Amino acid sequence: MAPDPANSAATVPTFADRLRRLAEQANTSGADVILIAPGPDLEYFIGHSIGSHERLTCLVVPAAGPARLLVPTLERPGWTGSPVESLAVEISTWTDGQDPYAALAALLPPSAKVLAVDYHMPAVHALNAKATVPGSELTLAGEAIAELRMRKGAAEVDALAAAGAAIDRVQRRIGEWLRPGRTENDVAADIGAAIVAEGHARPDFVIVGSGPNGASPHHEASDRVINPGDVVVIDIGGPMPSGYFSDCTRTYVVAPAVGAEVPSRVREVYDVVRDAQAAGVAAVRPGVSAESIDEAARSVIEKAGFGEYFITRTGHGIGLEVHEHPYMVAGNSIPLEPGMAFSVEPGIYLPGEFGVRIEDIVVVGDDGPLLMNTAPTELTVVGSAG
Amino acid sequence: MAPDPANSAATVPTFADRLRRLAEQANTSGADVILIAPGPDLEYFIGHSIGSHERLTCLVVPAAGPARLLVPTLERPGWTGSPVESLAVEISTWTDGQDPYAALAALLPPSAKVLAVDYHMPAVHALNAKATVPGSELTLAGEAIAELRMRKGAAEVDALAAAGAAIDRVQRRIGEWLRPGRTENDVAADIGAAIVAEGHARPDFVIVGSGPNGASPHHEASDRVINPGDVVVIDIGGPMPSGYFSDCTRTYVVAPAVGAEVPSRVREVYDVVRDAQAAGVAAVRPGVSAESIDEAARSVIEKAGFGEYFITRTGHGIGLEVHEHPYMVAGNSIPLEPGMAFSVEPGIYLPGEFGVRIEDIVVVGDDGPLLMNTAPTELTVVGSAG
Repeated sequence: MAPDPANSAATVPTFADRLRRLAEQANTSGADVILIAPGPDLEYFIGHSIGSHERLTCLVVPAAGPARLLVPTLERPGWTGSPVESLAVEISTWTDGQDPYAALAALLPPSAKVLAVDYHMPAVHALNAKATVPGSELTLAGEAIAELRMRKGAAEVDALAAAGAAIDRVQRRIGEWLRPGRTENDVAADIGAAIVAEGHARPDFVIVGSGPNGASPHHEASDRVINPGDVVVIDIGGPMPSGYFSDCTRTYVVAPAVGAEVPSRVREVYDVVRDAQAAGVAAVRPGVSAESIDEAARSVIEKAGFGEYFITRTGHGIGLEVHEHPYMVAGNSIPLEPGMAFSVEPGIYLPGEFGVRIEDIVVVGDDGPLLMNTAPTELTVVGSAG
Repeated sequence: MAPDPANSAATVPTFADRLRRLAEQANTSGADVILIAPGPDLEYFIGHSIGSHERLTCLVVPAAGPARLLVPTLERPGWTGSPVESLAVEISTWTDGQDPYAALAALLPPSAKVLAVDYHMPAVHALNAKATVPGSELTLAGEAIAELRMRKGAAEVDALAAAGAAIDRVQRRIGEWLRPGRTENDVAADIGAAIVAEGHARPDFVIVGSGPNGASPHHEASDRVINPGDVVVIDIGGPMPSGYFSDCTRTYVVAPAVGAEVPSRVREVYDVVRDAQAAGVAAVRPGVSAESIDEAARSVIEKAGFGEYFITRTGHGIGLEVHEHPYMVAGNSIPLEPGMAFSVEPGIYLPGEFGVRIEDIVVVGDDGPLLMNTAPTELTVVGSAG
């Protein structure tokens, strides 16, 4: 579902400006036209996106001239009242039994040969669009689009801050649900409900990785029963009514059996990850490269001797998608700029033992990082007998 | 989420046979290799599909030689225990910071030039795969895949019948929830819960189109309050734990105010749609064309003078997707064969007034249609004062 326009972090003048800048991107990237299918890119540029299953819906943004939108006739009512009706974007329709790609071709600039498609467009639409324009060439518009989406405006940063505050409220309540004897699925169900109760449109992911399950970064939740002393990775988030995502990870320790202590190995690994995460965040400022954030966090873990157990990149951009540009990963040399928003989430994953990950969303500020998450990162023991 | 393999309508030998036949399809269609991204195609061929956000996961099926699967290292644990581990499909991994497309290229046949991609593959993966193989050409594997997926095996038909029975149980209970004074959203929430209670993995769509809202075929549900006498389109379905979808539409009339009757215009339109739907179903048998089913239903509506208000195709294939090949639409001349499964769902949509749609799933049997839905199609008045 598209976000409620009333809650959206953009207005009609903002959409108009984004479309104007996208046409500029088409020009500078050598595309004659940019084609965008339903999904987060469509939400970003015209404030509404409805799925069309296999039926073609496509925004057409030429390097010169007005943008146009093609939708199936029977989905036309779903666009009524959306921001696109207030933009200078003509809406065309095609009807079952007609060729949607011929309808699309009729909306392209007459001499269009370089068709740039958004990252998410299904291959069936991209290749059929190309086939309809003799001599045309397909390219990816993803980088041109990311040039705009990567740099968040003030209203978008506000939306990310609201998302961060909402998921932090859930993290602060984990002790209500994470107790010995319950399953990961039990805990995940309670967290999912709380994600909605604290203001999200829906939960998108609820990772409860207890004990050895925490050593798999993308483990979700299972019927494993939580034991005293378990280390548990809780990585949770979802979209707000604005469409903007939260994403926050904390790692907890379930109270050990009476008379036992949290093992020193757990404290050691936890502290290394916490230091690495803080180092990654502290390195954030305009002008440094994306990969330098990865390097700042990774070097802490490597120096502590756990380098081989940090098996992921350090972070991903976030906005209308939970994973988007820019990525904090070796090889990504793009310089950070104010407004870029991403996760910093190093981890240590010890197969057969446990995992530790700590994740905050940060926005690049004029002088350093702006933190979207403020839930405490100290090692927290939960589930003690009352 | 992938279906629970224990509930899946296929076994390891079935997957092996499907992969063998897909390689044959590659050969006959001129593709050197077929590439499949996460989604229903992957579920169909190897019994498991986990999403990878922006990270490349790809099944590689060459025209000759064994199939291989490329997955991100951090998602490798999610494949443990899946059918692919019992198939002769080697699993390779790539790790954050490496080039996934180089890893993919290393899995392709050495001389591969024609790369056929599944319909759903995001453009970013399809175009980057092509860019990694100099001189290569992208084509769509969708039709080759549909050649297999269109013809359901016995276990698949059983799965569709179980899905049909489950959604029929919900349709038979509509009178519990559809009453004057409630909103469409209220009714939809109750239906959504019942879809799960009656055996589905989740609701996928819950259309409650009351009064004029029913005249928009893809209207979902709104805060419109149900009134006495409303005509209400209820189009509902979702995947079962097997992964196979249900999809069934019935149109109800809410009891008119005391002393009023169901208007003759409503009865007239309802009967035309019911006759058209029955005519479409009755026309189903091996050897007739897909478009002839559309024609059989449409001609009834046209003869009654409502042709301009039947604004959709007559039906869509169904299986691991709610909309898949074959489509019952003008221009689709493929002959029906035993095992093909699709909806027959004509409708009349009267703008500003109401809509009527009746939909059953049918499978082509050796001699005629096999009905997956048996909920009654007589005009049903609900919500009478007790």
